[in-house]
Amino acid sequence: MSQQTYPKNTWYVAAMSEEVAGSKPLGRKICGESIAFYRSQEDQIAAVLDFCPHRGAALSLGYVEEGLLVCGYHGLKMGADGNTKAMPLQRVKGFPCMKSYAVEERYGFIWVWPGDQSQADKALIPHLEWAINPEWAYGGGLYHINCDYRLMVDNLMDLTHETYVHASSIGQKEIDESPVSTKVEGDQVLTSRYMENIMAPPFWQAALRGNGLADDVPVDRWQICRFTPPSHVMIDVGVAHAGNGGFDAPADKKASSTVVDFITPETETSIWYFWGMARNFKPEDQALTDAIREGQGKIFSEDLEVLERQQDNLLAFPDYDLLKLDIDAGGVQSRRIIDRIIAKEQIGVSSPKAVAPLQTISF
Amino acid sequence: MSQQTYPKNTWYVAAMSEEVAGSKPLGRKICGESIAFYRSQEDQIAAVLDFCPHRGAALSLGYVEEGLLVCGYHGLKMGADGNTKAMPLQRVKGFPCMKSYAVEERYGFIWVWPGDQSQADKALIPHLEWAINPEWAYGGGLYHINCDYRLMVDNLMDLTHETYVHASSIGQKEIDESPVSTKVEGDQVLTSRYMENIMAPPFWQAALRGNGLADDVPVDRWQICRFTPPSHVMIDVGVAHAGNGGFDAPADKKASSTVVDFITPETETSIWYFWGMARNFKPEDQALTDAIREGQGKIFSEDLEVLERQQDNLLAFPDYDLLKLDIDAGGVQSRRIIDRIIAKEQIGVSSPKAVAPLQTISF
Amino acid sequence: MSQQTYPKNTWYVAAMSEEVAGSKPLGRKICGESIAFYRSQEDQIAAVLDFCPHRGAALSLGYVEEGLLVCGYHGLKMGADGNTKAMPLQRVKGFPCMKSYAVEERYGFIWVWPGDQSQADKALIPHLEWAINPEWAYGGGLYHINCDYRLMVDNLMDLTHETYVHASSIGQKEIDESPVSTKVEGDQVLTSRYMENIMAPPFWQAALRGNGLADDVPVDRWQICRFTPPSHVMIDVGVAHAGNGGFDAPADKKASSTVVDFITPETETSIWYFWGMARNFKPEDQALTDAIREGQGKIFSEDLEVLERQQDNLLAFPDYDLLKLDIDAGGVQSRRIIDRIIAKEQIGVSSPKAVAPLQTISF
Repeated sequence: MSQQTYPKNTWYVAAMSEEVAGSKPLGRKICGESIAFYRSQEDQIAAVLDFCPHRGAALSLGYVEEGLLVCGYHGLKMGADGNTKAMPLQRVKGFPCMKSYAVEERYGFIWVWPGDQSQADKALIPHLEWAINPEWAYGGGLYHINCDYRLMVDNLMDLTHETYVHASSIGQKEIDESPVSTKVEGDQVLTSRYMENIMAPPFWQAALRGNGLADDVPVDRWQICRFTPPSHVMIDVGVAHAGNGGFDAPADKKASSTVVDFITPETETSIWYFWGMARNFKPEDQALTDAIREGQGKIFSEDLEVLERQQDNLLAFPDYDLLKLDIDAGGVQSRRIIDRIIAKEQIGVSSPKAVAPLQTISF
Repeated sequence: MSQQTYPKNTWYVAAMSEEVAGSKPLGRKICGESIAFYRSQEDQIAAVLDFCPHRGAALSLGYVEEGLLVCGYHGLKMGADGNTKAMPLQRVKGFPCMKSYAVEERYGFIWVWPGDQSQADKALIPHLEWAINPEWAYGGGLYHINCDYRLMVDNLMDLTHETYVHASSIGQKEIDESPVSTKVEGDQVLTSRYMENIMAPPFWQAALRGNGLADDVPVDRWQICRFTPPSHVMIDVGVAHAGNGGFDAPADKKASSTVVDFITPETETSIWYFWGMARNFKPEDQALTDAIREGQGKIFSEDLEVLERQQDNLLAFPDYDLLKLDIDAGGVQSRRIIDRIIAKEQIGVSSPKAVAPLQTISF
Repeated sequence: MSQQTYPKNTWYVAAMSEEVAGSKPLGRKICGESIAFYRSQEDQIAAVLDFCPHRGAALSLGYVEEGLLVCGYHGLKMGADGNTKAMPLQRVKGFPCMKSYAVEERYGFIWVWPGDQSQADKALIPHLEWAINPEWAYGGGLYHINCDYRLMVDNLMDLTHETYVHASSIGQKEIDESPVSTKVEGDQVLTSRYMENIMAPPFWQAALRGNGLADDVPVDRWQICRFTPPSHVMIDVGVAHAGNGGFDAPADKKASSTVVDFITPETETSIWYFWGMARNFKPEDQALTDAIREGQGKIFSEDLEVLERQQDNLLAFPDYDLLKLDIDAGGVQSRRIIDRIIAKEQIGVSSPKAVAPLQTISF
């Protein structure tokens, strides 16, 4: 009905690796596509339309056997290419080929390309240094939120909201008293804010202590938000004892990390939000990883109601022109890149009915 | 889509005073308008569209600071007139003026005029003697019910239903054996029923005892329902020891009170129902007030399922002509007054799109 | 909107007898009709539109008094023929006649004919020998499922799914390794599968033990599914010690029973599913009846999610041509009979608005 609001010919994070375990598939809707993810082999992930060609059952309710996804209704065995490989007492050669999806497991995540599989290029999956370098540790989680994915991009590209939404942890008055600077580099948007000679808020005090540093002295604080399409936002954040160079201070003078956000549209008005934090200090300290994850999970959950109520309001007033202030520049520029990618994707798309299951033969 | 079923240029009860406390706003939809109510000062109530002009966040998730409603997302400070007064690092003069609402706190309630603010006249708020006279006490509560507000008007203007819906408390066979008399006086409808020389039902036996009177002797009972627009129903109810003049009996021969009903449309098919009871005996007895409120709350909750299922049925059979019997005259006459007021309100209304936020400038 | 998917001029099971008890009516939607079922006398069931002619209240919220259904709102007394019989202080002769339904209590169930009452013939209610013959015992239950009733017909006419959906109880590999045979006899469809010299699965081992037979010896197993319109499926199931004639083995060599399924449309996409099991061994053993019911209830509950997710998928891809394999022949043939009956029913139906309440007079 409405114009498509997200690109489909791109890589999205569909799941955390541990969500698809053993012989149990995972059913998840990504960009309007109902997809069954499963492990055809321990180190091999597959993704097919979550729709059995036989009678339309959800394949994700089934199980994996000998590398095939067995439908839990009548035992049809689906292959990773969308072709039925076997079914008890049936010849399956003439069965229609169903839609399958380019999928890749990398960096502890399962990545899917919900659009045209023939265009999927694994080289386009972003490089994540923190995920492979042993000097880094990572912990994160997943939230489902009923909002347009672009509202979450806006949220993360304008951290002014920390002062209000996260007042008791990472927020502090100095944030919204400090201007931001936004620049666009190709398909990347950078928004940064630097605060000098301030006191660290509770979350960062704890991080300083966790790193063996005094938490009651003035610090320099930074937030460098980096949007890359379709909807990834990586944020370098940290504090350093004041006067040591801030972001560039030596490791023993600062506590820093990268906030990791993969925002994956489920529908036009709902998302799978993969959040986490990567740090390059004490990477072997699992208890610290767990503590940070717990703290971050609590902080990030504060955004849910704000975003869902904002979405309700925007649906009620679809014609209202939202203000575009300097603090919004990060989100505004990110949306321009998104719009350009969608427009490019639309060129040459003949059939608007992109979500029907492939069906080469019916009988 | 459908024709408007409630007047908007009129005063409705939006909340009980205690629902808007301290620096915490209250978000509530009234007549289809999402409104944020807040106290700009301790004795000053304000009401604005629950929509931040910056990015559409719900202002009611924020807080009040120095008399302004601070948006909980990015700190925009909204004034009671719908104009943005401040925002960190921003010049706000050019921000669009949002819709605000005429609002007044009186009698322990917050009254709102959801329509055209320029027409709001505080003198039109009804006078409630029981709310200001120290000889009276009041207790009440609030229910949310999924029904057209006029179904609740019907309900209260025909107390025959007490016999069936409230059989164990205020209902008794003599109610529906006694005819009602209905008269219209200007914009007011009066429906009354008198029952003589009967035994009091349990609720009124308790009230007699509460007033120090014998509960096992014949009584005269009365119900005088008074509708005033848009949807207020005040009901004088009581019993007096038989032969003392009924409604006009001296205070030491009767137990009487006024049932108070403010019925506020949330949408075309849902309401905020403010119910209560005002009494002019033992007004200082708080324990009695609490006991009556608890009893009344339980009795009035019996109407909820009846009304919601009735609403479902009417939606399923929109063309059915409901019967209009003598007992329905109170509701029928009340609806005629409502229809007249709506018709009058529609004259000269050019734009049907009355619920868009005011937006004088966008950029 | 869509074409009607179920016949209405036919008998459906509407309730188990014990669901309509004493003076308490039962409100239940059958084939899109909201119906109030009640006992006008202990041995007499009645069914009327669940809509009070006075103000549209749900009659099923009321109670029965002296054989009449009293509306719980204002005391209107409805008769089994849809005519109002009395109302306090009212003359009711001119009240509109509301829709009533042909209804019959038989075999422990309440049967209703949701269509044209004048065509209802009680002789068309199927004969259920197991329900009246003292050599049989019956136990069963009711599930509400959000799916097209024909998906449940498909389910029961293709027991291949037992291998997958009910793997731990009645499923076994030999089922889907054994071909089925389907034949149509008039309006009846028969699908049968025979398995010889196999080991019994857990449910049938227990049944053998319950019948005093060894459970660790090879058996012959049978499944004979019988569809009759509109949507009844009776399934003869059982195991006999191998080599004794299978289905035709003497009673002391086998454990057998009839799975009973009455599938009643609530709407186009939801059903009341009455399931049960009738057995002709140890009929007096109530503890055994209870144990079987509990076991069957657990097994049959495994179908719910499968069917509801299948329904979701079919709604998302309404144009997909489901495969029609040999194992689906039972369902396919059953649907052909259903389509034929619906087509016949549509002939001569002038008004498409079949669900409005009868209303002969309005005032």
